[in-house]
Amino acid sequence: MDPGSNGGTGIAAAVDEHRLWSRHMEMARHGALGRGGVDRQALSAEDGAARHQLAGWARALGFRVFTDVVGNLFVRREGLEPGLEPVLTGSHLDTQPTGGKFDGAYGVLAGLEVLEAMNDAGIATRRPIEVVAWTNEEGSRFQPGCLGSSVFAGHRSVDSALAVRDRDGISVGDALAAIRAGEPDMPTRPVGFAVHAYVEAHIEQGPVLETAGTPVGIVTGIQGTRWFAIEVLGEEAHAGTMPRRHRKDAFAAAVAMVGALDRLMHDEDDVVRFTIGRFEVSPGSPNTVPGRVFFTIDFRHPDAHTLKRLGDQVQAVCRAHAGPCSVGIEETFHSLPCAFDSMVVDTVRAAVRDLGIAAMELPSGANHDARFLAGICPTAMIFVPCERGVSHNEAENASPPDLAAGARILAETLVRLADT
Amino acid sequence: MDPGSNGGTGIAAAVDEHRLWSRHMEMARHGALGRGGVDRQALSAEDGAARHQLAGWARALGFRVFTDVVGNLFVRREGLEPGLEPVLTGSHLDTQPTGGKFDGAYGVLAGLEVLEAMNDAGIATRRPIEVVAWTNEEGSRFQPGCLGSSVFAGHRSVDSALAVRDRDGISVGDALAAIRAGEPDMPTRPVGFAVHAYVEAHIEQGPVLETAGTPVGIVTGIQGTRWFAIEVLGEEAHAGTMPRRHRKDAFAAAVAMVGALDRLMHDEDDVVRFTIGRFEVSPGSPNTVPGRVFFTIDFRHPDAHTLKRLGDQVQAVCRAHAGPCSVGIEETFHSLPCAFDSMVVDTVRAAVRDLGIAAMELPSGANHDARFLAGICPTAMIFVPCERGVSHNEAENASPPDLAAGARILAETLVRLADT
Repeated sequence: MDPGSNGGTGIAAAVDEHRLWSRHMEMARHGALGRGGVDRQALSAEDGAARHQLAGWARALGFRVFTDVVGNLFVRREGLEPGLEPVLTGSHLDTQPTGGKFDGAYGVLAGLEVLEAMNDAGIATRRPIEVVAWTNEEGSRFQPGCLGSSVFAGHRSVDSALAVRDRDGISVGDALAAIRAGEPDMPTRPVGFAVHAYVEAHIEQGPVLETAGTPVGIVTGIQGTRWFAIEVLGEEAHAGTMPRRHRKDAFAAAVAMVGALDRLMHDEDDVVRFTIGRFEVSPGSPNTVPGRVFFTIDFRHPDAHTLKRLGDQVQAVCRAHAGPCSVGIEETFHSLPCAFDSMVVDTVRAAVRDLGIAAMELPSGANHDARFLAGICPTAMIFVPCERGVSHNEAENASPPDLAAGARILAETLVRLADT
Repeated sequence: MDPGSNGGTGIAAAVDEHRLWSRHMEMARHGALGRGGVDRQALSAEDGAARHQLAGWARALGFRVFTDVVGNLFVRREGLEPGLEPVLTGSHLDTQPTGGKFDGAYGVLAGLEVLEAMNDAGIATRRPIEVVAWTNEEGSRFQPGCLGSSVFAGHRSVDSALAVRDRDGISVGDALAAIRAGEPDMPTRPVGFAVHAYVEAHIEQGPVLETAGTPVGIVTGIQGTRWFAIEVLGEEAHAGTMPRRHRKDAFAAAVAMVGALDRLMHDEDDVVRFTIGRFEVSPGSPNTVPGRVFFTIDFRHPDAHTLKRLGDQVQAVCRAHAGPCSVGIEETFHSLPCAFDSMVVDTVRAAVRDLGIAAMELPSGANHDARFLAGICPTAMIFVPCERGVSHNEAENASPPDLAAGARILAETLVRLADT
């Protein structure tokens, strides 16, 4: 079935797969690396060039471009009733130091593609639609990430955001001033405004859609995350002389904890995300029984009840398997699951149904700017597959038809939201 | 029962517990550290001072002192038949950087105590008895350890030993020349000579004797050792987005291997020594599924058959538990168990029985100079307990009565061997 042939608003057919793909390739030149990836960290010269590129495309299409005091960049297509709260879409243009062409850029370029497709199709909407590129989503140059969206949503003060410094001591404020110097005529808004709804398109950064052979994911929310830091203390001893029953082997105790945690976290549905990414053994000599192990737990789940039930058992499970060692457990991070707004998710569902594009529903495994927007306006996300689920990697890849399919769903969704 | 009252040669009663303890305290002044320990690394100025101390005591008692071209130091009490092969006893005076007062020093000082006790008791033997302090047993300054004994036993050439350099580029030959400059009149022998029997006294460096409440261990041999290096390769992935069934988690695979190896190596008798001392996880980021783990296995057993049977399964067990990861296994060290000579062990047993001192038989968990001597002459060892089994640590401790008990068994054994 042709896109837009069945109950759609007609916008989907105007989305141009080739144009969307070409803009990704153009944008990837800013910070291009040798193996196909991109190094375009927040508020760097490369990020400045990418912003200039976006603003240039937008102005050429007749859209107004704004920034705000933390550098979020907005492209506005006016509505029939300019006083109504706009529908907002977008993502980010900054990348990891060895990032790919699609993480973030896709959400911004798909938004611009929708605006241009609306021009081409001659579609007017009641509400304005704005495309946003949030400042410093990745958090690799300035910590933490989602800086622009968290300030926009009131989770963080402007002053504290501008004061964050990178490794070289350059502040967000300083870096922003340099970026603005390249766009002296761009109007600057105060931070934050009322938003009717927010929809963010993004590559999945996981393998679920690709494995299912489905080009679009209807994202129902962002799963919750709990981080724990575990320190196991035993006693160093000679590997050749100390019998097992006299050992206080911190490594053996930590491995017993890991085994028990693994059983606790095991689910047949494979929804639990349980990762031990850091695991350090001291003193690290082949013939010395380890006296200390430090390890981290990254545990995520979309359901708040399960996040609490399983996470609350971590401490007891570790203590129960410490054997002759002592163990200290600290919870270092706790973010609750975020369920996206049913009105916006339903609008995405309706677009999927009416365009006849295959889709499946899934939670987001990673965090996104959408988490912060969800606190101030009805919010949802749309995913497209990425090759083998690989992201934060120069090898990150996605297919032109999948990117276009996601943009068509986004277009249909935005037009409907902008007419409510 | 009084020492020496029952079938002994009379030498045991002449062993002076207080004198033996005092010499340990005197010797520990050379390289003394702040928390009761000793830093007296091989051929350092402190080691030179310790050698000078030993030579001084020996000469004052009328014994001749020699060295050889790799710095092994010999104290000779002449026999009635000076042309017979001597009975040799001793150990080493060098320590770990944060070592204790007893590791090595005990074997040398117990030997000297036996010679002095023989003087006191007016005991003459057919064969000469010599006390030796082997060069660089610990291997902390110059690698590998047991340098002096391995050259003496013909396992290593003199030239290659003299060429070994420390971290600062100083060779064994250079360091020896500096030591010799402090003892210009000490005669130097060529390396190696025929030995009738070798008996080494040492602290256990494990908790077996202390736990059993037994002051003396009859050491039946040195267990065999096999070392393995294991590299597990998976694929890095995002902790939030990658489902378990798609992961190639090198950490999870390594933990599965460790669990299976632990089951393989588990023995009710607690004779197997199985240690994972080095375990490195990459990239070591809390929210990244690990792509690589490197770990080592230190496996020891006194029985050659068991050492082969269990060690030969390591590779298959690791491969069977690699899951979606690949694994490389390298055996990096393999030393067979060494069974001590039955004639010498029987002589120790007879001494224990006739002196009525409680003793138990056990293998040595650690390596010692005796391993190399066992290749060229009938050899055995005598252990005494050390507090909580702690060694290679400033806290290393032993009790004066236990040290004396071991020296009495050593004295009785040496006198009997020297009359055969």
